[in-house]
Amino acid sequence: MSEGPKRLDVVWTAREIDEDEVAKGAVLVIDVLRATTMMIRLLEAGASEIFPVTEVEEARELALRLGPGTLLAGEREGLPPDGFDMGNSPSAVDPALVKGKRVVLTTTNGTRAISRSAKAPHLALAAFVNAHAIVEWVEKTRADQLTIVCAGTKDRFSLDDALCAGLIVDRLRAGGGWSATDSAVAAGALFERYRGELVSAVEGCTHGKILTALGFSTDIRLATAVDSTAIVPVRSGQSPTRVIGAA
Amino acid sequence: MSEGPKRLDVVWTAREIDEDEVAKGAVLVIDVLRATTMMIRLLEAGASEIFPVTEVEEARELALRLGPGTLLAGEREGLPPDGFDMGNSPSAVDPALVKGKRVVLTTTNGTRAISRSAKAPHLALAAFVNAHAIVEWVEKTRADQLTIVCAGTKDRFSLDDALCAGLIVDRLRAGGGWSATDSAVAAGALFERYRGELVSAVEGCTHGKILTALGFSTDIRLATAVDSTAIVPVRSGQSPTRVIGAA
Repeated sequence: MSEGPKRLDVVWTAREIDEDEVAKGAVLVIDVLRATTMMIRLLEAGASEIFPVTEVEEARELALRLGPGTLLAGEREGLPPDGFDMGNSPSAVDPALVKGKRVVLTTTNGTRAISRSAKAPHLALAAFVNAHAIVEWVEKTRADQLTIVCAGTKDRFSLDDALCAGLIVDRLRAGGGWSATDSAVAAGALFERYRGELVSAVEGCTHGKILTALGFSTDIRLATAVDSTAIVPVRSGQSPTRVIGAA
Repeated sequence: MSEGPKRLDVVWTAREIDEDEVAKGAVLVIDVLRATTMMIRLLEAGASEIFPVTEVEEARELALRLGPGTLLAGEREGLPPDGFDMGNSPSAVDPALVKGKRVVLTTTNGTRAISRSAKAPHLALAAFVNAHAIVEWVEKTRADQLTIVCAGTKDRFSLDDALCAGLIVDRLRAGGGWSATDSAVAAGALFERYRGELVSAVEGCTHGKILTALGFSTDIRLATAVDSTAIVPVRSGQSPTRVIGAA
C-alpha cells in the first residue's frame, strides 16, 4: 500500500470505465435493478456459481457447454426466454430449484461493466442488500484505490445505482482514509439527500417505474432492503466470467 | 410543440452527448470553471463576438484569418501562451481592452461540448452568473426538450458544472411542465444539498482546488455569483463556432 489517502472514485456508466485505471485497485459493480441484487440472491439461495453473459443465445450455448446441473436465468421484456428456468426477479428465486446449481444469467449492463474491469485485481458485486458486507470486503482487499462502477441503463446515469454507490461512499468515508473524486462526493451527497426515502426514490427513478409497470414492485422492495445479507459475489474467473460467493 | 411534459435531461460530460437526440431541442453548455463564465464576462465587457477553439495553434491561425480587431485569450497551466492578449480569467477581463473586439478563446471541454451539439437548433452557454437569464432564454425557445451539457473535465464528472445544471433544473421544474431524467433529478438534488454553501462546494471540488492553488480564487468567487448578469451567449455560426450575446 502507498502512503496517504486512498482514491475513491465512482463512474456512472460502464462506458466510463478506464480499463487501465481500474487495474490499480478494487472494483465494485452495482446494478441494483436487478442484476447484482439477483446474483447476490442466487448465491444466498445456494447457487454454487454464476456465469453472467450478455446475450440470450450466448447463455444457451454456455449452459449446454457447462452441462447438467446448470440453470438458465434472465429475461427479455419481463419474461424468461424459451427454455429458461427462471427470469431475473430476485424475489422469485426458489432455493429448492437453485441449491447446488450453476446459473447462467443474462444481463446487459452488468456484464459489460465486469468485462471492462477485466484488469482489476479485485472485483465484487454490490447492491443495497449487501452494503455492509461489501464495505468489510473492500477493507480486506487493502487496495490503494476503489472504483465503484454504476452499471447504468443503456449507457445512461441511473439514480438507483448512484444512490447505492453513495451509501457505500458514505460508509467508507465515515471510516476515514479515503480521498473522494467529484463523482464520489456527488454520490455520497445524493445518498444523503434520499436516505430517508430510499424505497420511493428507487420506485420513482426511470428503471423503477418500468419495473413497477411490469409488475415487479416486490423486487424493488427486496432490492432496497439495506444490509439484509452478508453475501459478497466476487469474480473468480474470466472468459467466461465466473462469480462465486466470497469465502 | 408536442403535448405533454417537455424532456429535461442532463449529461455529465461532452462525451455523453447523443448527437441525434440533441437535434430535437435546445442545448445549454456549462463550463463554470471557467470557459462559459469567461465567455459571458467577455460579452458583458463589450466583446462583439467570441470564437471558442480547442488548440493554441488553431487559435493563433484563426486570429490571423479574422484580422485586425481580434484578441487571443486562453491559457495553458495557468499562463497565457506566447502572443496571447489575456488568459482565461473572467475576473481579469479588462473592458477597455475587449470592447468592440472579437475574441478567439481556447477551451478544451467547452469547445468539444459545443461541436458535439452541432445539430441542436438552439444552443446557449450557461453558468451560475447568468442562470436567471438562461431560464428565460429556454422558455423563449419553446423547445420540446432541453439537454443541459456539463462540459466536465477530461471526460469526467465535474461537481461545479453539475451544481450549476442543478440550479437550472431546480428553477425550470419550479415552473412546471418538465419531465426530468434520472440525471436531471440528481443534478437538482445535488444543487439542493449545496445551495447554502455554493462557494465552498465549488472551492472544494477537484477543479476548484486546482484553480485555488494556481492563485485564481477570485475567479471562483466571481463564477459563483448567481444571477449577476443578464448576458446569454448563443451560438450564431458554425465552423468556426461563433458566439454572440442573445438579443
